[in-house]
Amino acid sequence: MPPSKEELTKRIKTFSKELAQEGLDAAFIIYPLNIFYFSGVFVSGHLLITAQGEAVLFVYRTMGREEKSPLCPMEPLKSLKKLPAILEEFGVCSLGLEEDRLPKKLYNRYESLFKGTLLRDVGEIIKRVRAVKSAYEVSCQKAASKMLAEALDAFLPKLKPGLTELEAAGLLELELRKRGHPAHLRVYGFGQEMAYGHLLSGKSAFYPSFVTTGQGGKGVFGYPQGPSPKKIALNEPILIDYAGWCEAYLVDQTRLFYFGNLPKEAFEIYEKVKFLLDELEKCLRPGVLVKNVYKRAHASAEELGISDYFMAHGPERVPFVGHGVGLEIDEWPPVANLEIALQENMVIALEPKCHVPDLGVIGLEDTYLITSNGPKRLTNYPRKFVGLS
Amino acid sequence: MPPSKEELTKRIKTFSKELAQEGLDAAFIIYPLNIFYFSGVFVSGHLLITAQGEAVLFVYRTMGREEKSPLCPMEPLKSLKKLPAILEEFGVCSLGLEEDRLPKKLYNRYESLFKGTLLRDVGEIIKRVRAVKSAYEVSCQKAASKMLAEALDAFLPKLKPGLTELEAAGLLELELRKRGHPAHLRVYGFGQEMAYGHLLSGKSAFYPSFVTTGQGGKGVFGYPQGPSPKKIALNEPILIDYAGWCEAYLVDQTRLFYFGNLPKEAFEIYEKVKFLLDELEKCLRPGVLVKNVYKRAHASAEELGISDYFMAHGPERVPFVGHGVGLEIDEWPPVANLEIALQENMVIALEPKCHVPDLGVIGLEDTYLITSNGPKRLTNYPRKFVGLS
Repeated sequence: MPPSKEELTKRIKTFSKELAQEGLDAAFIIYPLNIFYFSGVFVSGHLLITAQGEAVLFVYRTMGREEKSPLCPMEPLKSLKKLPAILEEFGVCSLGLEEDRLPKKLYNRYESLFKGTLLRDVGEIIKRVRAVKSAYEVSCQKAASKMLAEALDAFLPKLKPGLTELEAAGLLELELRKRGHPAHLRVYGFGQEMAYGHLLSGKSAFYPSFVTTGQGGKGVFGYPQGPSPKKIALNEPILIDYAGWCEAYLVDQTRLFYFGNLPKEAFEIYEKVKFLLDELEKCLRPGVLVKNVYKRAHASAEELGISDYFMAHGPERVPFVGHGVGLEIDEWPPVANLEIALQENMVIALEPKCHVPDLGVIGLEDTYLITSNGPKRLTNYPRKFVGLS
Repeated sequence: MPPSKEELTKRIKTFSKELAQEGLDAAFIIYPLNIFYFSGVFVSGHLLITAQGEAVLFVYRTMGREEKSPLCPMEPLKSLKKLPAILEEFGVCSLGLEEDRLPKKLYNRYESLFKGTLLRDVGEIIKRVRAVKSAYEVSCQKAASKMLAEALDAFLPKLKPGLTELEAAGLLELELRKRGHPAHLRVYGFGQEMAYGHLLSGKSAFYPSFVTTGQGGKGVFGYPQGPSPKKIALNEPILIDYAGWCEAYLVDQTRLFYFGNLPKEAFEIYEKVKFLLDELEKCLRPGVLVKNVYKRAHASAEELGISDYFMAHGPERVPFVGHGVGLEIDEWPPVANLEIALQENMVIALEPKCHVPDLGVIGLEDTYLITSNGPKRLTNYPRKFVGLS
């Protein structure tokens, strides 16, 4: 179900207030995903939002699609050169732009078009506004979790030793495709990229990757992360860290499987990781600083005797234990050593993972909604670490 | 096969010469895909290339992977703050950065780090260097074409009427996954995105999309392009516009299929499109301006009586008939109304497509290498438009 007019009105109102507080008359939202967030339609164009809460969408093409914004009037835009006249019409003297999205070169074009207009960044504001989810957004994320669970259930009987990680991933992704997954995952970080998630077996999961994730994966040459041509074997953990999707919203979840037998140590560490995650989720309360969640994770890993290989080894250790999730897989805030306070209705994934030598990555990940009554788990797939046959 | 030391040396030499011509001492390459292009390893970091042709790679993490650059020494980088000292060590007073890739906000950080250093864009240079392919790159693209052909052959017997576009796409993608596809497609354009390609049936293909492609597709809410939950029916064209992959290199290809019967008109238009593409490929010679290829396409469409629905209708018409292909699906140059001369060893996809009312999109796409002896087709899948059963 697309967002309602009321939903979009609230989003724009929240943003407009922030604009007014920053002393900005308006913002041009240009990054398509942000246009979608505020207007409900995914188009290439410019969404003008004023500090008074007006919102008008100027669109290059795709006016011909049946989907219209439930809120914003849509007008065709032939050329960037028309934009200064729009600013004049709305009496805009100070304008926000998404400095975290616009490449420097494109930004320069706007700068020269909007000479005489004070320009400021609104990327930070949008990041913070998007981090706090509405009931509608959470309902989408619950549906995304359900989609992922159903796809996993349909896929697991087809997972067999001897399949390559790539083929196994393709089989899981086929189940996701059947259920409406667009085969694309949106990522915020500069130059970062990810497909669906990671399906990794045994020591494959140790490979670090240029993307900041709890595990890497060997991948293929030119795409060094995720599943590889390695065959899934007996007696090794199979890690499935995948995202569910509904109406562009994501959840992030990791579960473990295996064929054959695993050493007792694997289950002991698994229990410790589960214990750590259960402890950690209790920290997910409004007002808690993410650095304290992060430090708590490392302190717990120390207490549990798993700190040597918690979140990878030595210089490859990743500097986080979780992250926001929403329209992108790595939303604000990161759960890292940072002075950021959690807020009610943020949605956060926590992913404690142990890179156990000679074995593989033993880890879990769940996505939580932060409420004043404590965290609510949105990913409800059973946490059983039992063998498949 | 990864690129050889000689291959990378040539790439860096070509780039260094351009740096010297621009009067720049060096460039920091930061976008991971460009780091990969010049160094042969896909990492997060900074690749320093000097006008003298030195190249050193400073890497954040993932030093632990077994892949090393065959050419560039790799050194760990703990913090951005170390970068100015590196510039000093190499005596760099003027520095190139990728202004087409770096978000304004990130650029600002470098600007304040590199105070006193003259900063210039090198994104344009890299775009032009990458547009001209080596024999190695073309061999990867030939292998990508083979992968796509094999996946199509394995998939077509499974394609049946009654499958949703999404499920059919998932089945094709499974065949691509088996053959090493990373399930991710790299796109250059700002805010543009694409998964694998488009599998569309009948009138689904009419939907325009915010990505600039020859057809759009209804997609799903929040991802309005590509396959949708529509069921594939008898008596409609099925358009498969997918990319092949090998060692990060892509080729782009569109083929048509159908079940049941199609009106005679469909085959007549198909023959015209094929004729037009055969005429158009003759324009792919070094020195020809892309605007002349573009104009020729529209003139031919006019002569053939298909101009009303060539490259979509009215305001939704897309302003191109082809594009470069390499590490990204939309590389330099676009084949549009622009004053850009084709060069020997550019690789270009041409995609004449007709949006035929009440029927669907009838189109073809092939990827060509430009040589002084004329174009060489890299996508060799048979162009038969015959029914499936």
